[in-house]
Amino acid sequence: MFKKILIANRGEIALRIIRTCREMGIKTVAVYSKADEESLHVRFADEAVCIGPAPSNESYLKISNIIAAAEITNADAIHPGYGFLSENSKFSKICEEHGFKFIGASPDMIDRMGNKARAKATMREAGVPCVPGSEGVIPDFKACKKIAKETGYPVMLKASAGGGGKGMRAVWKEEDLQDAWESARQESKAAFGNDDMYMEKLIEEPRHIEIQIVGDSNGKACHLSERDCSIQRRHQKLTEETPSPFMTKKLRDDMGKAAVKAAEFIKYEGAGTVEFLVDKHRKFYFMEMNTRIQVEHPITEQVVDYDLIREQILVAAGVSISGKNYLPKLHAIECRINAEDPYNNFRPSPGRIEVLHAPGGHGVRLDTHVYAGYIIPPNYDSMIAKLITTAQTREEAISKMKRALDEFVIEGVKTTIPFHRQLMDDPAYVSGNYTTAFMDTFVMNEPEEEK
Amino acid sequence: MFKKILIANRGEIALRIIRTCREMGIKTVAVYSKADEESLHVRFADEAVCIGPAPSNESYLKISNIIAAAEITNADAIHPGYGFLSENSKFSKICEEHGFKFIGASPDMIDRMGNKARAKATMREAGVPCVPGSEGVIPDFKACKKIAKETGYPVMLKASAGGGGKGMRAVWKEEDLQDAWESARQESKAAFGNDDMYMEKLIEEPRHIEIQIVGDSNGKACHLSERDCSIQRRHQKLTEETPSPFMTKKLRDDMGKAAVKAAEFIKYEGAGTVEFLVDKHRKFYFMEMNTRIQVEHPITEQVVDYDLIREQILVAAGVSISGKNYLPKLHAIECRINAEDPYNNFRPSPGRIEVLHAPGGHGVRLDTHVYAGYIIPPNYDSMIAKLITTAQTREEAISKMKRALDEFVIEGVKTTIPFHRQLMDDPAYVSGNYTTAFMDTFVMNEPEEEK
Repeated sequence: MFKKILIANRGEIALRIIRTCREMGIKTVAVYSKADEESLHVRFADEAVCIGPAPSNESYLKISNIIAAAEITNADAIHPGYGFLSENSKFSKICEEHGFKFIGASPDMIDRMGNKARAKATMREAGVPCVPGSEGVIPDFKACKKIAKETGYPVMLKASAGGGGKGMRAVWKEEDLQDAWESARQESKAAFGNDDMYMEKLIEEPRHIEIQIVGDSNGKACHLSERDCSIQRRHQKLTEETPSPFMTKKLRDDMGKAAVKAAEFIKYEGAGTVEFLVDKHRKFYFMEMNTRIQVEHPITEQVVDYDLIREQILVAAGVSISGKNYLPKLHAIECRINAEDPYNNFRPSPGRIEVLHAPGGHGVRLDTHVYAGYIIPPNYDSMIAKLITTAQTREEAISKMKRALDEFVIEGVKTTIPFHRQLMDDPAYVSGNYTTAFMDTFVMNEPEEEK
Repeated sequence: MFKKILIANRGEIALRIIRTCREMGIKTVAVYSKADEESLHVRFADEAVCIGPAPSNESYLKISNIIAAAEITNADAIHPGYGFLSENSKFSKICEEHGFKFIGASPDMIDRMGNKARAKATMREAGVPCVPGSEGVIPDFKACKKIAKETGYPVMLKASAGGGGKGMRAVWKEEDLQDAWESARQESKAAFGNDDMYMEKLIEEPRHIEIQIVGDSNGKACHLSERDCSIQRRHQKLTEETPSPFMTKKLRDDMGKAAVKAAEFIKYEGAGTVEFLVDKHRKFYFMEMNTRIQVEHPITEQVVDYDLIREQILVAAGVSISGKNYLPKLHAIECRINAEDPYNNFRPSPGRIEVLHAPGGHGVRLDTHVYAGYIIPPNYDSMIAKLITTAQTREEAISKMKRALDEFVIEGVKTTIPFHRQLMDDPAYVSGNYTTAFMDTFVMNEPEEEK
């Protein structure tokens, strides 16, 4: 087993990984930027190394500094968390070359799954259902037009290197195609330094349902059921739940089998997520695979009593999995609490947290790196906490979330707590009959009077 | 279902009950003493009524004021929590007479189980194994001597109205009996206004293992397995766990059956606990029955996914139970965090909490009514939080507790956190081979240097 793991990340996920390492008796090294000196991941790690100034590309994305920190502290493995370098094949490769076990996917795996067009081609080969569209990268606009016609409108243009909705365009009729093609490519070039585009059929009334999988070094994989992540704003997930209210036993079985097939086809090692779009007829299509831990992994942990970070570490250390799948025994919901103003177009609200009171009690889990007095830096993403409730039924999990949101006090910055409070009372959300278009028509109520 | 419940209690248990009521859509009324104006149970209830000054007998024990509060606020049920009036048959009776459903045992049930000698006689009748000793109250010293001889030394003299170790004496040989008899009676008279004594065989190497039961208004009962509460100081529990490390499948089955038999014999309605002493040969003896929710109920909730407060409310509203028993699927440990100085004989340390940082993450539950800025009043018991960890195995639950204790920051008052930290590393505790005598030889290490 590893003796010391360096965590190449920040915020709640760095703390999350440190917690499991402590529980496993593994020493930890935190790395941090100047902006994160007062962060809890720095305080709770056994050692901490400053790796540069606030901007990510001078610290959390600076591979040489992270490798140097691992060398100085004599770490034997590196956990990348999510975001930053977690799906960077170069980083995975450099880690291995320097003798540090990368707790994540191999460089080859990341390359195969990180490029969305290539991932889809691989999945087609594995026999996993994919959304109809271009076979890989579209060479030019002429081909684009032809493929769109074959696929049938509406279609979706997507940047191969994309993420977070950048370089993505929905096109409903041929005359809009050229504008979309050009603007999406420009946007992709600016954001990712690459303007490769691919195309997919636009799925109407789609639900984003993903399957958690774990694979071991023997090429064996299992699944841990689904997470419904359809509630998104600009392709950013806001809240997730498991089981999906749209799920049936048969659909879970079919999607689980497809995800395990995908993982075993590429001999995937580690924890990963196979994301699917599910249409209103419960047909599902491979969307992408995330070769890392997800933000929303705790809801799976809650309903299967399984520590996914622990499992990542065990698998990276060569431990085999049993191969049995895990089904949800309870219902769990996660609300991402962001330092954003939901009454002002979710505008980021960095600054000092003056008062913090955390909810607690039965069925309430809180994963957060912030505390009273903490200053949220403006440099990184605005998520400051993940509030998770677990109960016997969906109805109870929602009631518990409402109760926990009411108890949660954060003063000094604006947060998305009022958004989640309203969401938990929204008839469409409560009915469970929601799609990825949910947020398109969602409007915040007037702010409540202070109690 | 009830529309509004008054909670005749304070502190974490009042908040615990409010939380479940909110989740069930039931309005709540908090009552509070002048000393508790700033308490969270006051803030989180829908309504709050001040019922008197700080001393308990002028507020939390003042039945007339509590009934008046229930009348003013139009509550339809009263939940007594634990301690205070929770096992007061007069209160239970007055509640019913005034038309408030008492969420607890009936007056008759409380009388039958509250008097320890009477409880034992009832249990013998039900066929539940009891510790050999006197049949009920000992009439005089002559009888005492005779019974002690029949029972066989060592014996234990106990006050019938006792609790918290008051009026209790271990006697190892006949010549010490008279002194013990007299001093125990004096102590009992002073503490409880009653000097009735009974006697039991002193069980060597005893473990305190209790069975959680729930009974409904049809006279049906089920059990939810055991809690090991052997780690006690002066008969006050410090930490509890489930499953008991001493448990076997057969013993659980036998104890569970005995507890259900006890509950069904007296047609017990509500949540209750049957406490047993278990000797080193795994023979078990009825000790007492608590006709209320216990402080340590969360560990049971954690391993059976069952909200016990919810169940109390449902049963009180006339809902039937299925009758199936619940077995632990996981391991849970609770540490009671008291505002006491473990380096100074656990002396109470009331005062203002200056800084509070709560632990969190996977498998960590915190039940607390305190917050940064809260002033712990000197008038009540010193428990300020219950920290509960849950994991697949006992070893993992201990590791998780150590990690959570390390994260838990409370500044301004002394707490028992260092005690629990040391306990979780204690070889006897870690081995699971501990008895109720554990604390007799436990010595705190020197305080650690501040990190």
